[in-house]
Order: sequence, then structure tokens, then C-alpha cells
Amino acid sequence: MILTATEAARRISSGTLTAEAYARSCLEAVAAREPVVRAFAALDAEAALRAARELDAGPSRGPLNGVPFAVKDVIDTADLPTEMGSPIWQGYRPRVDAACVALSRAAGGVMLGKTVTAELAYVAPGPTTNPHDPAHTPGGSSSGSAAAVAAGMVPLALGTQTGGSVLRPASFCGVVGLKPSYGAIARPGMKLMADSLDTIGLMARTVEDANLFLAVLTAERPEPLPDIAPPRIGLCRTHLWDLAEPAAREAVENAARRLEAAGAVLRDVALPPDFAALTEARVTINDHEISRALAWEWEYRRAGLGGRVAATVERGRAIPRAAYAAAQEAAAAARARFPEAMAGCNALLTLGAAGEAPEGLASTGDSRFQGLWTLLHGPAVGLPTHCGPKGLPVGIQLVAPRHADRHLLAVTRWAMDRLGSPS
Amino acid sequence: MILTATEAARRISSGTLTAEAYARSCLEAVAAREPVVRAFAALDAEAALRAARELDAGPSRGPLNGVPFAVKDVIDTADLPTEMGSPIWQGYRPRVDAACVALSRAAGGVMLGKTVTAELAYVAPGPTTNPHDPAHTPGGSSSGSAAAVAAGMVPLALGTQTGGSVLRPASFCGVVGLKPSYGAIARPGMKLMADSLDTIGLMARTVEDANLFLAVLTAERPEPLPDIAPPRIGLCRTHLWDLAEPAAREAVENAARRLEAAGAVLRDVALPPDFAALTEARVTINDHEISRALAWEWEYRRAGLGGRVAATVERGRAIPRAAYAAAQEAAAAARARFPEAMAGCNALLTLGAAGEAPEGLASTGDSRFQGLWTLLHGPAVGLPTHCGPKGLPVGIQLVAPRHADRHLLAVTRWAMDRLGSPS
Repeated sequence: MILTATEAARRISSGTLTAEAYARSCLEAVAAREPVVRAFAALDAEAALRAARELDAGPSRGPLNGVPFAVKDVIDTADLPTEMGSPIWQGYRPRVDAACVALSRAAGGVMLGKTVTAELAYVAPGPTTNPHDPAHTPGGSSSGSAAAVAAGMVPLALGTQTGGSVLRPASFCGVVGLKPSYGAIARPGMKLMADSLDTIGLMARTVEDANLFLAVLTAERPEPLPDIAPPRIGLCRTHLWDLAEPAAREAVENAARRLEAAGAVLRDVALPPDFAALTEARVTINDHEISRALAWEWEYRRAGLGGRVAATVERGRAIPRAAYAAAQEAAAAARARFPEAMAGCNALLTLGAAGEAPEGLASTGDSRFQGLWTLLHGPAVGLPTHCGPKGLPVGIQLVAPRHADRHLLAVTRWAMDRLGSPS
Repeated sequence: MILTATEAARRISSGTLTAEAYARSCLEAVAAREPVVRAFAALDAEAALRAARELDAGPSRGPLNGVPFAVKDVIDTADLPTEMGSPIWQGYRPRVDAACVALSRAAGGVMLGKTVTAELAYVAPGPTTNPHDPAHTPGGSSSGSAAAVAAGMVPLALGTQTGGSVLRPASFCGVVGLKPSYGAIARPGMKLMADSLDTIGLMARTVEDANLFLAVLTAERPEPLPDIAPPRIGLCRTHLWDLAEPAAREAVENAARRLEAAGAVLRDVALPPDFAALTEARVTINDHEISRALAWEWEYRRAGLGGRVAATVERGRAIPRAAYAAAQEAAAAARARFPEAMAGCNALLTLGAAGEAPEGLASTGDSRFQGLWTLLHGPAVGLPTHCGPKGLPVGIQLVAPRHADRHLLAVTRWAMDRLGSPS
């Protein structure tokens, strides 16, 4: 397994590793795994090595100096196509890098390639397989980003989440997924689908790496996560609890027991009952917004849209504005009440996904377990702490109210240090 | 003066006017006024006439059938450059139309050209002059859109508002400006600057036209505005009242008196005192978000950024995340409290701008009088009801809580019918 981003950046800056050697180790993993995993939609090994050599030839550019990263293919890059998993966008070459890519490169990151996305970051999957078992989905829509990090091809990758598109593939592939607060990572250059939900997030192998990458992506000075006292953690089953597989429920309850044994204050936290309606509100908002966001595709390239996207546009166009407004008002009210609903906890511990990655590649899985938190606009971190009966990863999720990203990462690091990954 | 959009669409659909003849009437106004007004950044008269003839040759495509519209040059169009008032973006040709342009065209609209924007929809003005007096600013940043509509070059134009970029030029140029609820018009293809504030809006000559265009832009079936009973209108001076010129204050008070005389229930409405802090909160949010949104320009084309944009990026990068989060939370709380702050009114009547358009082209004017309402995310309509001591337009503004767009337009139509334009 390749070095973490944090360790690699440290070694490259201190001269005990070259950016080129590190990039080569990533490319070796790509060569070994990509024929089966199929994480990349586009990759230019020579350009990456050239960029690495340039970094080696100069002073450190920043905290990601020499660290390769991959970019979900709904995020613009100037020097590789951005095809969005859609025939409509085949061959599309944006003029400039998305803001998040520009920040990553300016900090010394080496853009390795574009990762496979479900069609238009929605539900129809691409060719990526789960690195733990190619007969299973990697999840989606940030399929390639999760798979690339899980397969050791790259230590960091950018994803996007509108429903569960970062946290679900992170859970299925066994990596750390971070969906920061809505808006925390600037969106210029990202394909907007459901504008009030779309959030840029990231995949990493460690919480430390996620913290480093988030700082770069938000144009802040990276700082190590503080050591914290044992936190107060709310075990929050939500109205979706019974819909999850036993393995997912057991992962959460096992994590709760072990964190309590390690000194955390655990309590059961039930969200206000009306929060259950947020699952449907998210779908209303999603469908209404997508049906307008895809106006160009719908009006001029309708035949190029997959059936499920087209059906969503039709559904969304039929939603009355009053219903959309009511869903938005319910979401806004829930966001305002969420800090109090946390009942004094530093974070809520909840299901990361429905269970292990489903078999087959036809579906990327159920987004409801992540979508509730996406709607609440707060940070959510997926941790690869457990395995299911098939030996596939089962993640847990820690969430907090909007803007508490750094605090949540500190709690998450505390938890991950105590839970560890399954052997 | 050319026909309104509503009237032209009606005549074109009934066969008493051709789309081509209507487009020619617009182009004649362009030929007559553009040398001084300089509203357009790009215009392709032949393409517009070709599109009009195609519409004339077929059945009606929709409610804008044959109606020319102009597009602020920060909104993507596939067949004309999108240069954003910035040397960095010179010659940029997006692959596809923005969603709002696609919706307009699909409804039969004829894209006439791109209108001048202040640099990156911010503060540094382009060459546009005020159609009422070329020695005065048209306002900004949607300078060309307001001027083009005011000069009778086009009945409808798209703008964007992050502070006051639709309503201020509408007031200075004497046209109807509509900034709908945040998010009401889908943003794919618009240059994002301050993501949580950026709102696509429009200019028109009548409230009826604004209503028609809004329906098209939100993919809803256009419906005439309902006749309403005399509304309850709150005269809301805000904490900015004393900063406005006498002419602007008199316009609001005069409008209030006349609406009351016409049957409206008028009352004074004072916003909660802490709303005064929202003016500064908007600047904090604006600067923080712009400083991240322009990451590519800042990292790779810094020399191409004007001084005021560059200074904003520097200021924004220095704002601590906690201060940004506090500003966002204050804004969210104010949005939630705003319906109650309306004290039972159907709309608030307030200042449209600081006064008449300032002399000279160096500044586009003060955005605070519009920015407060932009931050509150509700619809705001500017009405060209008054004139100042120099004979230049002075608008009033009517606002309502988010999602009340249709209701506000109905109230606005009621008000405009009674106030009329200055002779």
C-alpha cells in the first residue's frame, strides 16, 4: 500500500522521497489494479510524472507537495477531458481547472487522472468494480474516486455528494469519505445537478489525510487535528435503522460499545420525529432542481440522457413549486434545529450505508443513509471500521451540524484511533 | 419604444407580427443607441434574424415565441463568447448554453447578444453608459442588461445579483428588475462568485413581462398574474435609510402615500434591530466565498484580475472560517425570522437604490440597498416609478420572503398599475 498523503508530503519536503518516485508508486498500483477495478475515466501518466519532476526541481509549493490526487469526472480539468459519465459530454475539454483542482495543484498536488462517475453524478453506474471484489459495486456516484483510493492507486481523490455519492462508495470500498459542510469547498467548475445539495467532498485513507486535503481545498492553512478529551457521541439510529442490513447496524452498535469502553460518553439520540420526512423532502428538492439544472441536456440532447435521469427530469418538472418550497423550508428548519437535536453531543454516530456493497454493478446502492445528512448541510465522515459477512467493508458515519467540520474531524480521528480498520 | 415581450409573443403567435420583424425593430434600436449606450459585449444580428426566421417558419415553440432576449456576459452561451468583463476570459467559448439560456430558447426566445458586465460580475465597470444620460453610470454589475432594456434594444435580459447587481442597474436605468428567490432560476452555466448569494435575475419593461420571463426561466407554465385585493404593504426604511439621497427616500414615501390612497393598507415595519448586522455579514460571506471561487484565476492568472477583485480575494482569504460561519448562521436565522418580521404584510416597500445614478462611469454605485435583500434570499422587484432632481430614474423596491415570488409579483403588479412610470 502506498504512503499516506501526509507522510508522503512530509518525506518529499524533507528530501527523503521524490515526488516522481511517489507518483510512480501510484502508477504501479494503477497498472496492477486498473484492468479489473476500472477506476479511471482518463489518466495521463506522462503528464503526472512531468508535473512530479517539476515539483522535484523546485522548492515546495505547499502542503500537498508531490501528492497525487484524482478528480471525479464531473469536476473540470483543463488538461484532461471532463465527460461526466455521459455520452452528451464525450470529449468535453473545459478551458480551466475547477476551483478545487486549482487549489490542489497550487498546493503542490499532482493531478493523476479523472475518475469514473455514475452518469451525471446520479445513479446509472460506470464500469468501476469494487476493489475488494469485482463482482460487487463500488457504490456511486463517486465510484472511481473511492475505488482508486481503496486500491492504493492514489492517496486522495475528489468526489461530489448530492444524495450519498461520497459516503456510500467510501463505505463500500473501505476508505475514509468526507462530505464537508455544504459550500465549504467552492464549486466553480463542478457540474451542478441539485444546486442546494451538491457538495464537493473527498476520499482518503486516513482521517489525517482528509484533514490535510480539506484545508487545501478550503484555502486554509493545514493544521494537525487537536488531541481532544473523550467526546460525547450520540448513537443515532434514525428512522432508516430497520432498512439497513444487520451488518450495518452491528457495525454502528459495535463501534458505540467500543468507543464507550474507550472513554467516550455514549447516549442514544433520537432525532425529532418530523425529521423522518426529510428523506422525502430531499428527493423532492433533488428532482425539482435536477429537472431545471439539466435544461440544456433535456432540450437539446434528450436522447443522450439515460432512462433514470430522464425520468427524474420528468418527475421534477411535475413537482409544483409550492411542494418544492415546502421541502426547502422543512430542510432549513431542520438545519436550524439540528444543533439542539444533537442533545449536547459532539457528533452523532450513525449508519454509513445500508450494509456491504450489493452484488452486481447494476445499482450503486441506496442513498438514503447518506442523503439525510447531505440535506442537513453539516459535515459527515465515513470511517472504514468494519467488515460484513461477505468480507466486504462496512463503514460507520459520524455527523455534526454545519460549519463544525474541524471539530467533527477531531472527534473522528479520536474515534478512528480507537476503532481502527478491520484486519 | 418596441413592444413588450408579452404583447409581441401574443402578436407573433396570432400571426399579426413576425418574429423577424420584431427582431428587426430591436436591432434598429441597437443601431440607433448602441454607439453611445454600449450595452453589448457581443451581438450577432444575422444569427438572431436567422433564428427569428426559423421561428416564423414553424409552429410556436412556446411562450417566448419570437421574443429577443439578451444575456449578461457571465452566463454561458454556445454561439457567442462569454468573456465576463475580464481579460482572463477573453475569447472564451463555452460548449453549451447555460440552463437559463436553454430554457429561454426552448420557449421560443431569440438570443440577441451578450451584455456588458462589470468585471466578473463584481464592481469594476465596463463601457456601458446610462441610456438616460451617458455621463452617468448605468449601475452594475448587470450594466448592459439594464441599459439594453431601458434603451428599447430588447424587451428582456438576464442578469445576476450577488449584492445589488440586478436591482441597482434596474433602478438607475428605469426598468423593472426582478431578483427571484435564491435558487429559483437554475445556475448551471453561470459564473459562480459568492455561491450562497449569486442569483440569476432579469430585467424587463413591465411586471407582466417579468412574470412571463420568470415562468420560462423556472420551467413553469406561464400564467397571468392574478388580480388581487388591495394588499398590506410594509414601509420598511431599514438601517440604511439615512444613507440614501432625499430623492430615493421621497420616492419610497411618495409611493407609500399613493398606494395607501389607492386602497392598500400601509404600515411602518421596522426590521429586528439585529438585522442591521446583516449588511456586514453579507460582505463577509461575499469576500470569503469569492476568494475561494476565483481560485483558478488567483493562482494562475492573477495579473489579469482588476485591483478591486484582487483586494477582495486577499480580504476573503484572511477571514477566519469561524467568522464566515457566524455570518452564515446569522443569515440563516434572519431568513427564518423574516416572514414574521413582515408583520402580516404581503410585501415590504423599501429603497430601490441610494438615489439617482451617480455621475461618471467609475463606480456602479452602492450595493447595500439591494444586498440586504439578496442575503435574505427572498424575491425582490425593482419598479421604475420615480425621477430624481436630475431627471434620472429612481426606483422603489418591493420584497418578500423566499419562495413568495409569484405572490410578490402579483402585489407588484397591483402597485405598478397604480403608481405608473414617471412621465
